[in-house]
Amino acid sequence: MTALPVAGRITLVGAGPGDADLLTIKAVRAIAQAEVIFVDDLVHPDVLLHASGQARIVHVGKRGGCASTPQAFIERRMELEARAGHQVVRLKGGDPFMFGRGGEELEHLRAAGLEVDVIPGITAGMAACASVGVPMTHRDHAPGCIFVTGHEKPGGQAVDWGALAATGMTLVVYMGVARAAHIQAALHAGGMSLEMPVVVVQSASLAQQRHVRTNLGALVATLAHEQIGSPAILVIGRVAQYALEALLPQAMDAPRAMLAT
Amino acid sequence: MTALPVAGRITLVGAGPGDADLLTIKAVRAIAQAEVIFVDDLVHPDVLLHASGQARIVHVGKRGGCASTPQAFIERRMELEARAGHQVVRLKGGDPFMFGRGGEELEHLRAAGLEVDVIPGITAGMAACASVGVPMTHRDHAPGCIFVTGHEKPGGQAVDWGALAATGMTLVVYMGVARAAHIQAALHAGGMSLEMPVVVVQSASLAQQRHVRTNLGALVATLAHEQIGSPAILVIGRVAQYALEALLPQAMDAPRAMLAT
Repeated sequence: MTALPVAGRITLVGAGPGDADLLTIKAVRAIAQAEVIFVDDLVHPDVLLHASGQARIVHVGKRGGCASTPQAFIERRMELEARAGHQVVRLKGGDPFMFGRGGEELEHLRAAGLEVDVIPGITAGMAACASVGVPMTHRDHAPGCIFVTGHEKPGGQAVDWGALAATGMTLVVYMGVARAAHIQAALHAGGMSLEMPVVVVQSASLAQQRHVRTNLGALVATLAHEQIGSPAILVIGRVAQYALEALLPQAMDAPRAMLAT
Repeated sequence: MTALPVAGRITLVGAGPGDADLLTIKAVRAIAQAEVIFVDDLVHPDVLLHASGQARIVHVGKRGGCASTPQAFIERRMELEARAGHQVVRLKGGDPFMFGRGGEELEHLRAAGLEVDVIPGITAGMAACASVGVPMTHRDHAPGCIFVTGHEKPGGQAVDWGALAATGMTLVVYMGVARAAHIQAALHAGGMSLEMPVVVVQSASLAQQRHVRTNLGALVATLAHEQIGSPAILVIGRVAQYALEALLPQAMDAPRAMLAT
């Protein structure tokens, strides 16, 4: 008998926000069964502890504008592995469909005629809110919430921060630290009070997580003073008033002179 | 030696959208260690298979306006159990902080001086999008997405649908079926095209899941024709164009005469 080659499946798997215990059972099972695993930079290494010893791990990060694997190359390699009959997992930080181009990969792979499944994951914004005690929605304060990126694609769909401010909803901003001055000004120009509570969560769900409470008017100064860097989530809205007191000494100190950098 | 009573912890746990395999590892562990578990209606029974045989399970549903356990009573019982030194888990459908009053419970319990942890969960909107292949964000179409409830609290913060339409972002609407006529009209009045793609996902992640593709102008008629009922998620936005073809016969048939009901 001659076995016909059978195309393997490709599964886009949400690897969660960092803490590997925030993987879903379904994700763990897909990772364990995978023969080839394509991994983004933002995926925590512990997630790969669920992989089989026989699995091939392919790192395809595109961190911070440095040399990275072109998207088309990643898609082509996944396609080839699937056509060779392999079970392919594509691990993406957080949820595959919340930022991070999962939709583009799905589009390409489906256009190539491949079967693709998607397993959702805990996105960093939800993990950040859970860890600091901030409900994203609240019947008295916010009938919904908005997940938005501060890092807009040049030439792509732009973020209208004024329109976001007008919704009255909680804003959960990804990749917003570098653009904080613009976001602060644009939200205020759109009518948001400078007193609006904000909580910033760095490295959500990881051991090195830290957070700081501030408000819209003091956002940029707080980021500088507390030396908050990426990855960080900004949660902007009335619900941010519920954020836990930050436990870090620097967050409870009286303001110190800024370090010269 | 006389042991002093030590207050147990309370953990608000996201039970995910339905499919028990979408629980996180962290949630499974908390459920397994709990001595008392308070469970909402919308939590799938299979989730409780992770509970210890010794755990007490307390159902505190408030389904559909029928007799339900008052919120204050639930909070008071959790408080008493924790003060008695028990490890308490509060299981909430989806994510504890995305709709469902997790924030209010946290507020009450913290005000009572109790330690509360929160474990995030996969929310129904994310599960719905994953299952039908619709990315919530997309660099060409939507730099963010909005999770909003169609079921607004009387006297609470109202949803300004026109403001949501103006953002250009993907809308993921919970509990929107009963209010679909209002949502359709209000989004259109706010400038959204009647051609805007919409996908409706009923019972996301469960065996009985079904979905239908339509557009804003045909939303109400489609819900009636396909007899879509709660629980369902509406995904409204350009990304809904990527939704898989629905596999149900009725979704592929030519329109039939509507059933008299």
